[in-house]
Amino acid sequence: MRREQVFWGWGEPGAGPSLPEHAGELLREEIGVSGEIVSRPVELDAVALPPSALPAALRERLQAVAEVREDVEARVLRSRGKSYLDLLASRSGDFASAPDAVVVPADARAVASVLQLCSEYGVAVVPFGGGTSVVGGLAGERGRCSALVSLDLGRLDRVVSIDPWSLVAVFEPGIRLPEADAALRAQGLALGHVPQSYEWATVGGCAATRSAGQTSTGHGRIDEQVVALSCVTPVGSLSTLDAPGSAAGPALRELVLGSEGTLGVITSVALRVRRRVEASYDAWSVESFLAGAELLRALEQDGIAPDIARLSDEEETRTSLALAGTGTVGRRLLGGRCLLVCGWQGATGRASAARKLIRGGALPLGPAPGHAWEKSRFAGPHLRDDLMDRGVLVETIETATTWSNLERLYRAVLAALPGLHVGCHISHLYPTGASLYFTVLGAQSDDPVAQWGAFKDAASRAIVSAGGTITHHHAVGRDHAPYLGEEIGELGIELLRTVKTRCDPAGVMNPGKLLVD
Amino acid sequence: MRREQVFWGWGEPGAGPSLPEHAGELLREEIGVSGEIVSRPVELDAVALPPSALPAALRERLQAVAEVREDVEARVLRSRGKSYLDLLASRSGDFASAPDAVVVPADARAVASVLQLCSEYGVAVVPFGGGTSVVGGLAGERGRCSALVSLDLGRLDRVVSIDPWSLVAVFEPGIRLPEADAALRAQGLALGHVPQSYEWATVGGCAATRSAGQTSTGHGRIDEQVVALSCVTPVGSLSTLDAPGSAAGPALRELVLGSEGTLGVITSVALRVRRRVEASYDAWSVESFLAGAELLRALEQDGIAPDIARLSDEEETRTSLALAGTGTVGRRLLGGRCLLVCGWQGATGRASAARKLIRGGALPLGPAPGHAWEKSRFAGPHLRDDLMDRGVLVETIETATTWSNLERLYRAVLAALPGLHVGCHISHLYPTGASLYFTVLGAQSDDPVAQWGAFKDAASRAIVSAGGTITHHHAVGRDHAPYLGEEIGELGIELLRTVKTRCDPAGVMNPGKLLVD
Repeated sequence: MRREQVFWGWGEPGAGPSLPEHAGELLREEIGVSGEIVSRPVELDAVALPPSALPAALRERLQAVAEVREDVEARVLRSRGKSYLDLLASRSGDFASAPDAVVVPADARAVASVLQLCSEYGVAVVPFGGGTSVVGGLAGERGRCSALVSLDLGRLDRVVSIDPWSLVAVFEPGIRLPEADAALRAQGLALGHVPQSYEWATVGGCAATRSAGQTSTGHGRIDEQVVALSCVTPVGSLSTLDAPGSAAGPALRELVLGSEGTLGVITSVALRVRRRVEASYDAWSVESFLAGAELLRALEQDGIAPDIARLSDEEETRTSLALAGTGTVGRRLLGGRCLLVCGWQGATGRASAARKLIRGGALPLGPAPGHAWEKSRFAGPHLRDDLMDRGVLVETIETATTWSNLERLYRAVLAALPGLHVGCHISHLYPTGASLYFTVLGAQSDDPVAQWGAFKDAASRAIVSAGGTITHHHAVGRDHAPYLGEEIGELGIELLRTVKTRCDPAGVMNPGKLLVD
Repeated sequence: MRREQVFWGWGEPGAGPSLPEHAGELLREEIGVSGEIVSRPVELDAVALPPSALPAALRERLQAVAEVREDVEARVLRSRGKSYLDLLASRSGDFASAPDAVVVPADARAVASVLQLCSEYGVAVVPFGGGTSVVGGLAGERGRCSALVSLDLGRLDRVVSIDPWSLVAVFEPGIRLPEADAALRAQGLALGHVPQSYEWATVGGCAATRSAGQTSTGHGRIDEQVVALSCVTPVGSLSTLDAPGSAAGPALRELVLGSEGTLGVITSVALRVRRRVEASYDAWSVESFLAGAELLRALEQDGIAPDIARLSDEEETRTSLALAGTGTVGRRLLGGRCLLVCGWQGATGRASAARKLIRGGALPLGPAPGHAWEKSRFAGPHLRDDLMDRGVLVETIETATTWSNLERLYRAVLAALPGLHVGCHISHLYPTGASLYFTVLGAQSDDPVAQWGAFKDAASRAIVSAGGTITHHHAVGRDHAPYLGEEIGELGIELLRTVKTRCDPAGVMNPGKLLVD
């Protein structure tokens, strides 16, 4: 297997950033924990796995089309994603739901064979790309199935083609974003899709979960970048055409995007890519979160929004200052002001028009906060491991709505999370609205799983009641599935179920995700 | 009923432009017809309709929820759309497939009742918006149904809400585009969606058929403008959320867009709208169609494309000159050069950057050709009536593909249409490709229906073989349905059928459209 993350947390051992110097004070004074390490993940040696329930006859037939691994390490590493809940379980050594085997096909044809075989034997299949789901999308739910395999797409990692003329690149699903980007870089191109999970996420995983990426304001979400895809289901394959626009009926591409492995496995993705340009940053201090939101709305609706826009609310700004310390930049952010970071990729005309507009309502902070953001853009999940060591509850909650409903949704989510330390930022702009991303911290209770269940439910109910989407870019997985019906209605759920049943009559594809079984 | 088009052609009697002065010469020398009027549509009085087959019990129940009309005029006017084939039939007085009744509900609830009743009685329902389909989308196909009603959405024509903060306006489906635009104008806003059928098309019809609109390069296709919609099916309603971006599973909105009335009836559409700005134009003479395409690709991929871009090939340019006569502008287009018209809506910085780029490969023609284009932007279908009076075959064929496949597709379509007069333009730009729009003229044969069938089939086969979409913005309807399988594959067709069966178990919704029965 290729480079792997630690089973109990994010990234490779010791590779990520650690909690900054000032964190101890924050943890003691605001979160109510001592800041000392109070919990450590179990060692792999200590993990006990249930014996593999893979039927012997199926094992033999799978081995004819793909590699099949049943060793402890393979099964542990493919047991789940990287949500707070996932990590609580992994750190405690609970691998009761581990896959019975990890199946590693080498091409789309082998994927098709695996899906057919597992359908025949009624064995659940959880497609595994980068393993970075934070919504239980990789949970070992067996549904009505007798066993479960993790379908590792790591070997489907080829660059199929790059068309610099049309700015279209076709990838196999298992290629990780940095490798896809490296292939493009050789031709002066860039992926233009940079989620926080960039270092580990795969192209197929991003498409299957409708990833947004930190540059979505400038470059569009992955669902806007995908020009065509192929998906292998247990009953056959679907390939959509790469026409840049079409009126040839409903867009079936849009049925596969966001299907989270419940219909089949994405086996190729054609993406619109970008010319590679250097990024530049500027940052601003704005009077308040809502005033900053108004600035962002004006920029976006005037067509001069930055490619990366990130506005922290008062609490998130204060927390960032508390962690980073206050220099010149910090002093301009004191007194309840808010940090706005803008990232520009080329487009200097747009940037100067935007700066003129921003200057009317903000104090300039120079490029430093933007560079600091860029440096730490992938840090969040690494820091989470350190926080969990210290008994801190740490979760993120994200949604989106129209500009006119943004304040209502923001206040509703805050009101649903009393007693927790909650900061928020806007990081994805659209002409008609924006995203809200909340970071939730608190002291873990004695039953952190129940604690999580209670506040997650409260936040999710607040979101759907206030007209937000249950997820702007984390996907549905298992954790948001109970709330999807509120968003798309009974007929919406029925349509998804109908399509699933047509593609996956045996019900083996990623049970319990997207739709509640 | 409200303002109506003539039953045998486009628009109101005498309201449209007529063939220009120079047309006679062109018709004689290039099309091979005399230019004299050789055929006139029948009078309404001469139309014989089959007796209404609407079951008496259904009539009574429909009357309880909606207006029901069975008079000749209502039935004739709702018999079909405005394709060349439609007009051949209407002009000849063939109304054998006329609807048995026209049902006019006043709100979404009444629509639901009509769909349930027609399902119960097995009576086909053809939703009717602007009546402008050019692909047989409104043809009176009964499928397995005993009778057929046209569901006229003319009374669902309200502006539900306008949110200038979020730039979102919600419309009922039957409002025509000029009326929707007028409501927006009062708030300084604009629809930003202007198909050639603008004067008659409805918001719901545009959404149901994935209309592109002449400003799609700047403002996006209707499928990019729709932020949410509601659709009433025989088994219930689907309403999608207006979040500007979401990862909450497959986008069900995209299943309804382009469903062409085969699942149900769109009862409200939330559209992203624009601030209203004045348009300005410039035009250029480029060396060749392919050189012009390269210019457009550069503009689009540099992010400085005009909002409206229209590049005629050598033949279309020559024909325009032949019709308009050659002034100063014309002389700069002689010798096989091509006309490029650019329209700008605001965005002066973008326009100057673009002009600098274009100047390197083109001769300036000033604003006049752009203003001439704007003046005649809705003229095409009016002129078609005059041409049909003169025994001219007149059809348009449109597709789209990636930039790198554009020349191949262009040549393939031209090669499939020997003996006809074919001009082409590019009018919708995307980062990864563009549309191709062919205007086909010829002398009608003794059997114009068979003649149409032969060349349409040849062109359609050429398109799918060369990797183009079977339709970029005219939709599938009945005419493209036989070719859709080539584009989306067997499983794609099966998925559409599965969704249709779930929404419309009785099979009453617009039979024979989108999917071949």
